[in-house]
Amino acid sequence: MNLTEIPLTQEAIYKGRIITLRVDKARLPNGSEATREVVEHPGGVCVAALTDDDCLLFVRQFRYPYGEVLLELPAGKLDRGEDPLEAGKRELAEETGASATDYESLGKLYPSPGYCGEIIHLYMARNLSFGAMHPDEDEFLEVEKIPLEEAVRMVVDNQIPDAKTQAAVLKVWAKLSQA
Amino acid sequence: MNLTEIPLTQEAIYKGRIITLRVDKARLPNGSEATREVVEHPGGVCVAALTDDDCLLFVRQFRYPYGEVLLELPAGKLDRGEDPLEAGKRELAEETGASATDYESLGKLYPSPGYCGEIIHLYMARNLSFGAMHPDEDEFLEVEKIPLEEAVRMVVDNQIPDAKTQAAVLKVWAKLSQA
Repeated sequence: MNLTEIPLTQEAIYKGRIITLRVDKARLPNGSEATREVVEHPGGVCVAALTDDDCLLFVRQFRYPYGEVLLELPAGKLDRGEDPLEAGKRELAEETGASATDYESLGKLYPSPGYCGEIIHLYMARNLSFGAMHPDEDEFLEVEKIPLEEAVRMVVDNQIPDAKTQAAVLKVWAKLSQA
Repeated sequence: MNLTEIPLTQEAIYKGRIITLRVDKARLPNGSEATREVVEHPGGVCVAALTDDDCLLFVRQFRYPYGEVLLELPAGKLDRGEDPLEAGKRELAEETGASATDYESLGKLYPSPGYCGEIIHLYMARNLSFGAMHPDEDEFLEVEKIPLEEAVRMVVDNQIPDAKTQAAVLKVWAKLSQA
């Protein structure tokens, strides 16, 4: 079965600081036309940093679209042309003060593929050392250390709604359980 | 530490078929002002439907923002005012033809909380029966049955980038492992 949609036209709607919105017309597999709303994003990175005593580093941060303080793994968006792993090292250092000598990919995450083109790169970081945190000027956050087993329980018990955090915590747990 | 940001002004940018874009000014904890880009979405639902022989029902679907066919759990957006569980039953039936007598919440997912307000409600469905699928007019998809253990391996091996699918598959596995 052919599932492919062919782009026909693009209309730029908005170009912002973080996201860009465009609205396309596309040809569907049955030959008809449909509108496709597409949010473009430069891409993101998320780091599950595991301490020597099997704790993960979290940040608490106000998330404006929900009006809530969320518990998330350290994360951020890629600078233009930035390598995802380098971005992960930068965000981990900025948000928590930690750096790691051992990084392992946990794959990619497509947060909401119906209308959004963002790719979030996930990493596990181990063998940590600690310096001073230095968040962005408009970034206010608190760092928290949570045992991995407790973090898994919190994800399963629905206390951590953030998608990248759910995926990365459970992937770290799955990888270490299999190892 | 006060992390809260206070909304000051809202500017409507775009109102589309699926998403709405607005740009706000907000007061930060340090008193300065910042711009906040917010994608609004009516909310979504995703169902991990487990067969009696421990397989999950998946759909393959072209996702326009990535230009790729993705393997995902059955999912869709809420109709206006629709109860999330009812939406889950509707989407499962539309996309796979399956209905279930046993539903359990797997919690909420915030796909990209920096700029997006979408909430995806996750469910596990069991005790399935099968009828005819009847997807939306502009929806083209293929149904596939994959053993749970294989699906977990595919998520951990980064063959399934979709966020809601990663989270729901690993949560089903975590719940059934603990049970």
